[in-house]
Amino acid sequence: MRRVVIIGFQSAGLTAAATARMVDREAKVTVIERRMYATYHPCGLPFAIGGDVPHIRHLVEAASKLPGVDVHIGTEAKAIDTDAKIVEIQDRKTLRKGKVPYDSLVIATGSLPLRPPIPGSDLSNVFTLRTMRDGEEILAALPRANKALVVGGGPIGLEAAAALRESGLETTLVEMQPNVLPWMLDPDMSEAVLDQLSRVGIPTILGKPVKELRGEKKVSSVVVGEEEIQADLVVLCTGVKPDIELAVSAGVELGTLGVIKVDDHLRTNIPDVYAAGDCVESSCFLTKRPILSQLATTAIRMGKIAGANAAGGDEVFPGVLNTIVSSAYGLEIAATGLTTRNARDAGIETIAGRIRTLNKPYFYPGAEPIIVKLIVKPKERRVIGGQVIGDGAAERVNMLAFAIKQNVTIDELARIEYCYAPPMSDCIEPLVVAAEAVLRRL
Amino acid sequence: MRRVVIIGFQSAGLTAAATARMVDREAKVTVIERRMYATYHPCGLPFAIGGDVPHIRHLVEAASKLPGVDVHIGTEAKAIDTDAKIVEIQDRKTLRKGKVPYDSLVIATGSLPLRPPIPGSDLSNVFTLRTMRDGEEILAALPRANKALVVGGGPIGLEAAAALRESGLETTLVEMQPNVLPWMLDPDMSEAVLDQLSRVGIPTILGKPVKELRGEKKVSSVVVGEEEIQADLVVLCTGVKPDIELAVSAGVELGTLGVIKVDDHLRTNIPDVYAAGDCVESSCFLTKRPILSQLATTAIRMGKIAGANAAGGDEVFPGVLNTIVSSAYGLEIAATGLTTRNARDAGIETIAGRIRTLNKPYFYPGAEPIIVKLIVKPKERRVIGGQVIGDGAAERVNMLAFAIKQNVTIDELARIEYCYAPPMSDCIEPLVVAAEAVLRRL
Repeated sequence: MRRVVIIGFQSAGLTAAATARMVDREAKVTVIERRMYATYHPCGLPFAIGGDVPHIRHLVEAASKLPGVDVHIGTEAKAIDTDAKIVEIQDRKTLRKGKVPYDSLVIATGSLPLRPPIPGSDLSNVFTLRTMRDGEEILAALPRANKALVVGGGPIGLEAAAALRESGLETTLVEMQPNVLPWMLDPDMSEAVLDQLSRVGIPTILGKPVKELRGEKKVSSVVVGEEEIQADLVVLCTGVKPDIELAVSAGVELGTLGVIKVDDHLRTNIPDVYAAGDCVESSCFLTKRPILSQLATTAIRMGKIAGANAAGGDEVFPGVLNTIVSSAYGLEIAATGLTTRNARDAGIETIAGRIRTLNKPYFYPGAEPIIVKLIVKPKERRVIGGQVIGDGAAERVNMLAFAIKQNVTIDELARIEYCYAPPMSDCIEPLVVAAEAVLRRL
Repeated sequence: MRRVVIIGFQSAGLTAAATARMVDREAKVTVIERRMYATYHPCGLPFAIGGDVPHIRHLVEAASKLPGVDVHIGTEAKAIDTDAKIVEIQDRKTLRKGKVPYDSLVIATGSLPLRPPIPGSDLSNVFTLRTMRDGEEILAALPRANKALVVGGGPIGLEAAAALRESGLETTLVEMQPNVLPWMLDPDMSEAVLDQLSRVGIPTILGKPVKELRGEKKVSSVVVGEEEIQADLVVLCTGVKPDIELAVSAGVELGTLGVIKVDDHLRTNIPDVYAAGDCVESSCFLTKRPILSQLATTAIRMGKIAGANAAGGDEVFPGVLNTIVSSAYGLEIAATGLTTRNARDAGIETIAGRIRTLNKPYFYPGAEPIIVKLIVKPKERRVIGGQVIGDGAAERVNMLAFAIKQNVTIDELARIEYCYAPPMSDCIEPLVVAAEAVLRRL
């Protein structure tokens, strides 16, 4: 009977456990999780703060529902003996120690909130937004807060700013790069996001670093560039820190980005030790360069591969396009593949087409603008990136991700078959309109 | 200067005209349209009747917005002299006749409302639902009607029934086949549509033919099977009749289904005469069998090919999957490719997987069920059909249509990359859940 042990019970670990059991019905699958609670949904935290999700505790899933999987919550993996193939554990409540032997191991330790080294970031009412505790503390602080400031204009920062605004706080969003969602959108596309933020009353400060948080015990202002901004609640959304300490002390090799290095089967350098999720380096499907993906969806897709292979399978992880969707106060923003900048950085020549049309026929009430930008390699005519803003952006970007992985040409994309009914869509699909815009420039 | 003449100014004709002009910027493009008004949106008619579209005249587009295209509204093409390459026309108001010479011609005459040969179908308050006049007459009849009956449980029948119900009429839907949407859904999927109709108070009578419409001058009842049902307003949604009279008299050859036969370049048997849209036979992309598609989206896709080729291009029409979406009182229903029955009729062995999940995470308010069914050829593991019911069905079916045309395996579909954010999607994409359900049965 194969013993599969998985360290970590978030997206990657949960999926790895379920997949391992499916691939080998006889396997004994054990999950070790340091948290005192089961799998939770960090991506739901901003929406719990904004009130869309009425009960923050609903973000925590009921305890293990996985048949045949033994889940140890509140249990710390202290060390991995890779020669003896044993994980040393300790129960965080009883402090009792134990040893869990494995035939194959999946490290899915994920990531931790990152508190950037800004002076004053240890003041009270300065939060990160990653754990259930983060969310609960922000919720508790809301009633006595008036002015919020969010540091970081990535997807979580954007959603956090919208949530605080929805909760009635004056909210400012600060991003060091000259644009919001700088890794996801080209500057021309992020303009539409800025318009939305401005419309809903969220001022933005772009291209300036946060230099200091000021206050006595509790934060009272933030120095951004040369400006001092009043704020009695600050949320730091500047990314996450991969949790690799255990792996490193077990001798697991890291990649150039400082996270766990794996091959295309998600094997680490140590025999029978796999890794998946936020603590693992991925590669860009297009450029093959190492990247940090750190998306729940990537963790799930990695968890499937690592779990299958740990249970005797032979599956390959193809790399990622970082297909992503975010919401700016109800505005749907999604992207996949390379932005113009990513492509330039990778030495790839591009041509782009951007269109703005309606998501429903002009005569149908509630028709809303949808903006689509496609990035294409002009010589091969291959689609390598897409950005969509508006209702239905998520599914359209999924389609583009699929098209990119299928290596389709922009000509093929302009000829896709799609469906039409006035309440759902227009008789010309926006992706087709965008593809034709590119074709006119080729 | 190439003279491209197009007969018909609906989806196919409009698109052919615009495309011809784009392919040959020097071409003189002339459109001849019998209707007294410009392009209109028949698919919008049910929603104008139901009141979602507040002004029915908004369904008619403003007169020609196509630069370089000469559009003659209210002009009948009386005959085509294929030797002299001339279309004989007549202005329907002034009755003045004329001749329009062409170098290439596109026949895009579309289809006409079909009034099935049921006794009593000429009674007043018995309508078809195809033209602007149909829509306006139904709207005018609504205030004095109480009980409506819709004949035909296809997409238009379903939308018409929902519209009449929304307008406050007691409405019954009758379909001769044992299921609604019989050409689009497998019976297990149409159950969900019946549930919805029942929930919103639209009784259905299935598997029984309409034998007679009764009444004195005005309809007062309908005999369905052995039952007589009171109805003072009847809408016949039993399909459309391809408008091929002009083509036939010009010697254009018809296919086995009795509509214009074309090759893969949409050429008819007559040199330099192309055809596109509802009056043309398509072929199923998968079985290569001739089918009647008669969708606006097919007409648009055909119009592009015919228009391009008429202007000197060399483009191939690949056949259709009949990708379609409809709405049953707000429930989104979409399908592409073969149903289990279509496949069986074509001698194709299939295996299917059907799943029901949520379109958003369980913790997000407003999460709604979504049902996905995938049809797969078990030996090749290729996806050949998909049916989706629920929010986002349209885009998902577009993705499936693309996957089918790319000849992907169910294994590839189970591994697609997708995006996740709680307000838009769940962390596991329903298409992936469905693909995994199929995999477990293979």
